[in-house]
Amino acid sequence: MTDRTAAPVNASATAPVTVIGLGLMGQALAGAFLGAGHPTTVWNRTRSKAAALVAAGAHLAPSIGAALDASPLTIVCLTDYEAVHELLDVDDVTLDGTTLINLTSGDSAQAREAARWAERRGARYLDGAVMAVPPVIGTAEAVILHSGPKTDFDAHSRTLGALGTVTHLGEDPGLASLYDVAGLAMMWSVLNAWLQGTAMLRKAGVDAATYAPFARQIAAGVADWLPGYAQQIDAGSFPADVSALETDARAMEHLIGESEALGVNAELPKLFKAMADRAIAAGHGGEQYPVLIEEFGRPWAD
Amino acid sequence: MTDRTAAPVNASATAPVTVIGLGLMGQALAGAFLGAGHPTTVWNRTRSKAAALVAAGAHLAPSIGAALDASPLTIVCLTDYEAVHELLDVDDVTLDGTTLINLTSGDSAQAREAARWAERRGARYLDGAVMAVPPVIGTAEAVILHSGPKTDFDAHSRTLGALGTVTHLGEDPGLASLYDVAGLAMMWSVLNAWLQGTAMLRKAGVDAATYAPFARQIAAGVADWLPGYAQQIDAGSFPADVSALETDARAMEHLIGESEALGVNAELPKLFKAMADRAIAAGHGGEQYPVLIEEFGRPWAD
Ligand SMILES: NC(=O)c1ccc[n+]([C@@H]2O[C@H](COP(=O)([O-])OP(=O)(O)OC[C@H]3O[C@@H](n4cnc5c(N)ncnc54)[C@H](OP(=O)(O)O)[C@@H]3O)[C@@H](O)[C@H]2O)c1
Ligand SMILES: NC(=O)c1ccc[n+]([C@@H]2O[C@H](COP(=O)([O-])OP(=O)(O)OC[C@H]3O[C@@H](n4cnc5c(N)ncnc54)[C@H](OP(=O)(O)O)[C@@H]3O)[C@@H](O)[C@H]2O)c1
Repeated sequence: MTDRTAAPVNASATAPVTVIGLGLMGQALAGAFLGAGHPTTVWNRTRSKAAALVAAGAHLAPSIGAALDASPLTIVCLTDYEAVHELLDVDDVTLDGTTLINLTSGDSAQAREAARWAERRGARYLDGAVMAVPPVIGTAEAVILHSGPKTDFDAHSRTLGALGTVTHLGEDPGLASLYDVAGLAMMWSVLNAWLQGTAMLRKAGVDAATYAPFARQIAAGVADWLPGYAQQIDAGSFPADVSALETDARAMEHLIGESEALGVNAELPKLFKAMADRAIAAGHGGEQYPVLIEEFGRPWAD
Repeated sequence: MTDRTAAPVNASATAPVTVIGLGLMGQALAGAFLGAGHPTTVWNRTRSKAAALVAAGAHLAPSIGAALDASPLTIVCLTDYEAVHELLDVDDVTLDGTTLINLTSGDSAQAREAARWAERRGARYLDGAVMAVPPVIGTAEAVILHSGPKTDFDAHSRTLGALGTVTHLGEDPGLASLYDVAGLAMMWSVLNAWLQGTAMLRKAGVDAATYAPFARQIAAGVADWLPGYAQQIDAGSFPADVSALETDARAMEHLIGESEALGVNAELPKLFKAMADRAIAAGHGGEQYPVLIEEFGRPWAD
């Protein structure tokens, strides 16, 4: 049994690591550790899923306890937090002194609760979110977010680096989940706006490939404004340096009219307009777009 | 009177140009032509708005007819298409032989109708859309879209270059309006997704400036996928190379739950989910996100 408490600060390139959960993602994670030369111990409820990893040099632990004992750092990646608790929140599993990094998807409340549970059980705990699909794990394209004690992240950041681009967001263990879903909201928004435009242009005989570079350029251009616009939000002051919300609302009406005239879906354009109209009704028509943070920051009940 | 029909192909850096309409945008346009050394004639209903331009060297025409006669190329930029017709669709204004570029905002049907009207009146006509605010006109940041006969665009592209980054989208005069509103839809989508994420993160004590670079990175990253995703649409085939729509829908549920738990607006997340759910109900759950083009391409009536 490894002395778990002896985990070196910023473990070397050959620090041992354990992966619990060998679904599509867990297999990719364990494979990336192996590929980077880390002695890798694995465990999965359905043992057969370890076969390819064992062939590639992984050690298949006979029990969860043995898996946890094999390395100072254990990555957990299961379906959901219920599965994590079902598997690890049992009396005969000892977590004392180990560092758990939970890359299972969940919400920020589940992450904070899991952090408290792990602390009670004597474990160090980081929550994480994988913003990538299994095939890119182990490349820089795989963004993996972590939150929780910075010292624990720092102690293992070299090992974690085998997985992709790893980031520490802050001490609050809920942050990784929050950034994850916020990032997904951005992803779906860019895709939906592109689909809206593509649907419109196709009605005029323009194919998707012709329109896509334009959509890409606009999305990337607007992305560049965000840090500047963020300053307005943090200052709580929204002078219409560039244009006033009223002007946006008028153009939104063009978008709705054009969508309807073309016979494409107009729900997204109508939602833009509904939110802008509410902010205008609240007296913000002469201010700049980021003033909508007030609408986004509260629930809406018709 | 200039021989309008003698407009040189790709006019020189000193080709004369006329600007009709000196609102905020028209003044910026005329100012950019002057700045680039073009002899610039202007006309505005309210003559006093020409004062600064005249001081800078513009020629204020005594009548619309004189304004049109002064240059082979006339830029029109008024409030809306109604104003354009009110001003120019009158018997004593001769358009024969002139080239009109209408940078007034409107929809694609108005643009196509104006093109037909101009043709009946013997004018060459390009429709345009200014995707920029007045202060950046004359810089590369000002994107100005044109559609209509390519030969007419080519004949004047050097002159138009004084305004910013000018593009020709195709022969259909409606295209500039369509790209314009589609681009705005992308702009509002990126901003709204950023506001959604910012609202969520602020509830966890993260300020807007801290979150913005992450949102920017995701938006720019997803923008890079669009040309590839467009190929799926043009091929009409949506294999789940990266992830299946069902997986997206499950994560959308996390986003909705997290938004509601935090007490932020959940309308945008719910719209994402509603559209994905419809595509899944139509049997596309195992296909990739761009399959939603079918939902975006038709009107939705509850
Ligand atoms: N795949 C992706 O593209 C992707 C991307 C980002 C994030 N993620 C997240 O990563 C996590 C894992 O995803 P995945 O794609 O690997 O899922 P998966 O292929 O369905 O694998 C699920 C894993 O959880 C295990 N499991 C479930 N319930 C369990 C229980 N009660 N006790 C013990 N083990 C249990 C399964 O064990 P068995 O093999 O015995 O069933 C399996 O190892 C999820 O939270 C997912 O949201 C996935
Ligand atoms: N400003 C921007 O940020 C911006 C950005 C992109 C696109 N645009 C588009 O550019 C166009 C002009 O915008 P703007 O900002 O310059 O607007 P503006 O400042 O309100 O100016 C409107 C212009 O239209 C003229 N006009 C209106 N009705 C008329 C009529 N019946 N007969 C003759 N002239 C008439 C006005 O003349 P008077 O001076 O006599 O009233 C003025 O020259 C609009 O279509 C707008 O959507 C503007």
